[in-house]
Amino acid sequence: MKGKFISFEGIDGCGKTTQIKFLKEYLLKKGYNILVLREPGGTNVGEKVRDILLDKYNFISPVTEMLLYASSRAQLVEEKILPAIKEGKIVLLDRFVDSSYVYQGYARGLGIEKVKIVNEIATMGILPDVTIYIDITPEEAMKRRGKREADRLERESWDFHKKVREGYIKLVKEYPKRFVFIDGMQEIVKVHQDIIDAVKKYLL
Amino acid sequence: MKGKFISFEGIDGCGKTTQIKFLKEYLLKKGYNILVLREPGGTNVGEKVRDILLDKYNFISPVTEMLLYASSRAQLVEEKILPAIKEGKIVLLDRFVDSSYVYQGYARGLGIEKVKIVNEIATMGILPDVTIYIDITPEEAMKRRGKREADRLERESWDFHKKVREGYIKLVKEYPKRFVFIDGMQEIVKVHQDIIDAVKKYLL
Repeated sequence: MKGKFISFEGIDGCGKTTQIKFLKEYLLKKGYNILVLREPGGTNVGEKVRDILLDKYNFISPVTEMLLYASSRAQLVEEKILPAIKEGKIVLLDRFVDSSYVYQGYARGLGIEKVKIVNEIATMGILPDVTIYIDITPEEAMKRRGKREADRLERESWDFHKKVREGYIKLVKEYPKRFVFIDGMQEIVKVHQDIIDAVKKYLL
Repeated sequence: MKGKFISFEGIDGCGKTTQIKFLKEYLLKKGYNILVLREPGGTNVGEKVRDILLDKYNFISPVTEMLLYASSRAQLVEEKILPAIKEGKIVLLDRFVDSSYVYQGYARGLGIEKVKIVNEIATMGILPDVTIYIDITPEEAMKRRGKREADRLERESWDFHKKVREGYIKLVKEYPKRFVFIDGMQEIVKVHQDIIDAVKKYLL
């Protein structure tokens, strides 16, 4: 039995973490074996890279940022994702290559092409079976964040977050087979239901 | 006035650091403006990446390792090397892309091609004006290290260090215009003199 690999994408505050938790509970009840991972991070080395990336005092060039994400991803693929899929698990992953396409390639203006070349090497070419994109507006994201202190990426300008959303919507249109567009502005329970409906198609 | 960019390569213990110090003193006396940098590291973010790479308790896959070196390098190029060259400085750099070709591409078996693709993106294609390769045997390197505790890379097997040296010798032959081969088994003062002779050609 070969496992599945489902990634979740969207701007910070879109509800990825909550929805992954809900989906995990749902799938566990159905008897599936689940592994939840997050990016950047998910491995010992990856978590150290995460600390560098999210530290708001770090000055990091766009190329460096892209390479740091790719390094964390490479370690995650080799150490966690590939072994889990081999064991028949369903891997639920909070961000994967699409985050780099959108954040560094599109919003930072590095160009998708460079990001693709590097990430194909980092991931050995593997892609998720399905990618759940949860769409919310940057306005809603900011409202949800409330008074919690923002990390290095959350501190980016308004235009940046609008560009990230724009980039995601472009990607969904470009890869309609892999992506599922979920309206994240709905009630949390309705979002959960839409995600279950989408995932069922790929698991059954 | 455009600056110059000189990198130093060789297995650990070959004398790079000492020879860079000597060359710096020599060039300062001649009135040059010098900047010494090291890899991985040399920037705030790069030094944090260095800590991850050299920590002997970290398990790091070859691809991850290659991407981490590239990320530190990208930051160094943008933040330090390009500005210094623009200001007319001579940059003396302890390791650059060739270390990745040899350590990750050749000795770890990732393949030089992948390492080249990633590093061209990381460095925006810049290469040193001249690369000083200081050649010593792994036996001599170990003798010089003495009782100092080895870091993650120094703890590699004997075969690994022999392969690294082999990789360097191949590179020198492949790029004879950029590389200068220096016999690092000689007296330290003789090595210094050979390096001065080599550098003079490129600076005058």
